[in-house]
Amino acid sequence: MSQHTDVNKYGEFGLIDHLTKDFKPRLPSTLLGIGDDAAVISNDKGYTLISTDLLIEGIHFDMMYSPLKHLGYKSVVVNLSDIYAMNVRPTHITYSIAISSKYSVEALEELYAGIKTACDLYNVDLIGGDTTSHLKGMAISVTAIGVTSEKDNIVYRSGANAGDILCVTGDLGGAYLGLQLLEREKQIFLSNQNIQPKIEDHKYLIERQLKPEAASDAIAFFKKVDLIPTAMIDISDGLSSDLMHICRASGVGAFIEEVKVPMSEDAKIMALEFNMNPISCALNGGEDYELLFTVSPDEIEKIQFMPGATIIGEMVDRADKLTLHTTGGKIYPLEAQGWNHFEL
Amino acid sequence: MSQHTDVNKYGEFGLIDHLTKDFKPRLPSTLLGIGDDAAVISNDKGYTLISTDLLIEGIHFDMMYSPLKHLGYKSVVVNLSDIYAMNVRPTHITYSIAISSKYSVEALEELYAGIKTACDLYNVDLIGGDTTSHLKGMAISVTAIGVTSEKDNIVYRSGANAGDILCVTGDLGGAYLGLQLLEREKQIFLSNQNIQPKIEDHKYLIERQLKPEAASDAIAFFKKVDLIPTAMIDISDGLSSDLMHICRASGVGAFIEEVKVPMSEDAKIMALEFNMNPISCALNGGEDYELLFTVSPDEIEKIQFMPGATIIGEMVDRADKLTLHTTGGKIYPLEAQGWNHFEL
Repeated sequence: MSQHTDVNKYGEFGLIDHLTKDFKPRLPSTLLGIGDDAAVISNDKGYTLISTDLLIEGIHFDMMYSPLKHLGYKSVVVNLSDIYAMNVRPTHITYSIAISSKYSVEALEELYAGIKTACDLYNVDLIGGDTTSHLKGMAISVTAIGVTSEKDNIVYRSGANAGDILCVTGDLGGAYLGLQLLEREKQIFLSNQNIQPKIEDHKYLIERQLKPEAASDAIAFFKKVDLIPTAMIDISDGLSSDLMHICRASGVGAFIEEVKVPMSEDAKIMALEFNMNPISCALNGGEDYELLFTVSPDEIEKIQFMPGATIIGEMVDRADKLTLHTTGGKIYPLEAQGWNHFEL
Repeated sequence: MSQHTDVNKYGEFGLIDHLTKDFKPRLPSTLLGIGDDAAVISNDKGYTLISTDLLIEGIHFDMMYSPLKHLGYKSVVVNLSDIYAMNVRPTHITYSIAISSKYSVEALEELYAGIKTACDLYNVDLIGGDTTSHLKGMAISVTAIGVTSEKDNIVYRSGANAGDILCVTGDLGGAYLGLQLLEREKQIFLSNQNIQPKIEDHKYLIERQLKPEAASDAIAFFKKVDLIPTAMIDISDGLSSDLMHICRASGVGAFIEEVKVPMSEDAKIMALEFNMNPISCALNGGEDYELLFTVSPDEIEKIQFMPGATIIGEMVDRADKLTLHTTGGKIYPLEAQGWNHFEL
C-alpha cells in the first residue's frame, strides 16, 4: 500500500462504484443489488427490499440543535423513505447505536422514544440491532426492510422513458433552509450565550430539517388509482442530483420548469434572507425526503388530482441532457453538484 | 432530562432490553424480533432472517494489528455467523462504512478485498450499503440476510429441553488468546519500536482472532444427517455467557464438563504463558464464532461422527442452574460475566 489516493477524488457515489465494481451478484435470488434506493431479494413467492444508512454525529447530525427524540424519529423515517421510493411499504427496521460515555440512559430513552413514535406512525416493527461503545460521539446504523409479493409493483430508478411526465411530492428546499437557520442560530449562540435562538417564526423549516416525514401517502395513492410510476427515487441529495440518478439509470435526459418547482413561502423568504437563489435551494438543498417519480403520458390523468404532487418537467432523449427551463425563458444545463451556485 | 444514569448500569444486554421493552411486534409477518442471533420475517411462503452488527475502531478493532483485508473479511464472517446460528445459510449482506480522512482509497480497496474474499468463500452477495465521512477513525455496519422456505428448519435459542445434549463445534479460547498476544506485542512495540513482534510461532491463535471462520460446515452437516438442533447460538461473547443466553431463552439449566471443553494445544500453552487458567479462556474469552447447540438425546447418534463437534455437557432443569463440573471433581456455578477469574 504505497499509494495514498484521497477518497474525495471519487465523490461518494464514485467511491461506492469503485469499491464494489467486482461484486457481481451471483445468486438468482439477488434481483437487484447496489445502485437503487433499496436492494431486492426474491424469496420463493415474495420479494424482500433492504436499505441501510449510517449516520455519524458531527457529520449527519449536530447535538447542539438535534433533540434526541427528533434524531431517533428522523433516522428511522429517512430509511423508510428509501423503501417507499421503491413503491413498497416498509415493514421492519433494525437499529444499531454506538455511543460514547457522555450519553446517559435518559438520553437513549429520548432517542428510543423518537424511534418508537416513527415505528408507531409508519406501522413498522423494530426487529433487531446492536448497541455498543464509541470513543467519541454517536454513530447510528438503520436498516429498513419491506416485503411485497407483487414483483411488478417494485419501481426502480431505471424505468423512465423519454416523454414521461416528471413529478414530485410536497415542497422542496425547506429542509436545507431549516439547516441554514439552525446553523446561523448556533453560531450566534456560540458567540454570545445570552442570545436565545430566534426560530419560533420558522417552525415549518425547522421541522422539515429535524423531523421530516416519508411520503407514505403517495404510495397509498398510487395503489388507489392503480398507477405504477415508471421510475422513482426519494430526494435526499437534492432534486438535481437525484434526478441525475434517474436519468443515468434510465438512459434518458430531462428538463425541469423552474416556475413549477414547488417551494413553501417560508422557504422562499428564508432563501432571500440568506441571499440565496430560492430555486438553487430547491435544486441542490437535499434532505426533503419527498418522492421524485416519472409517469407514462398515457396515465397523466391518474395523477392530476394527486394531493400534494406537482408536475415539474418531462423526461427527454439522453442527447438532450438534463436542463432547467428558467422563469426568464433561459435554458441552463444541470449537472449533479455542478449547478451549485447558491448565491443570487 | 434531569437525571443522568450511566449506561453501564444495565450492561449491554440489559440496556437493549430496557430501551426496547415497549417495542412489541405488531405485524403478523414478524415471526421473531429482538432477542436471538437474527430476526425472522415471514413473507408469503418464505422466511427472511436479518442480523446486524456495528463495529467501531478502537472498540472492536485496533488498526495497529488488524490488517484491513482481515478486518473486511472478519466483519462479514461474524455477521454471517449469526445467520448460520439460526440453522440458515446466509445469502446477502449490506456493508456500510464511515471513515475519517486518514483512510485512502487504497486502504478501502484492501478492506473491500477482504469483504470480497468472504463473499466469495461463503457464496453471499453484497447488495447495498452506505459510505460516509467520520470525524475520527472508522465505523462499520454490516447486515446479513438469509432466506429459507422451511420454517421448521429455523433454530432459535429458546428450544432447549432438560436432558438435551450440549455440543460445540471447533475449539475455544483461541481468539481471546490471539488478542492477548497481539495486545502484548503492541505494547512491546510501542515501548521500543526496534523490537519486531514475535507472532510467527502463534499463527493459529492470531488467525483465530484476526480471520475467524463461520461454522458453515456444521449447517451443511445437519442437513445431510437430517438433524435439527433444539437450540443454537454462535459463540461471540464466550461459552459461559452464550450458554446463559440459551438457558434463559429456553428456561432450563445446564452443566459443562471441564474435561470435555475443546481447546487447541496452542491456546492451552499460551494461557499458561499469560498466567491464565485455560478453561477460563475457553469459558469467557469470546469471539470464537463456533456454534453452541443442543440436541435431543434421541438423536445423539446423528452427531457422533460430526467432524469437529464435541459433546461438552447436558441441559438440566432450570432449578439446577448453570454449572461447571471441573476436572478435579468440583461443581462451580457459572454466571454470565460472573466467573471472570482469568488468573490461575
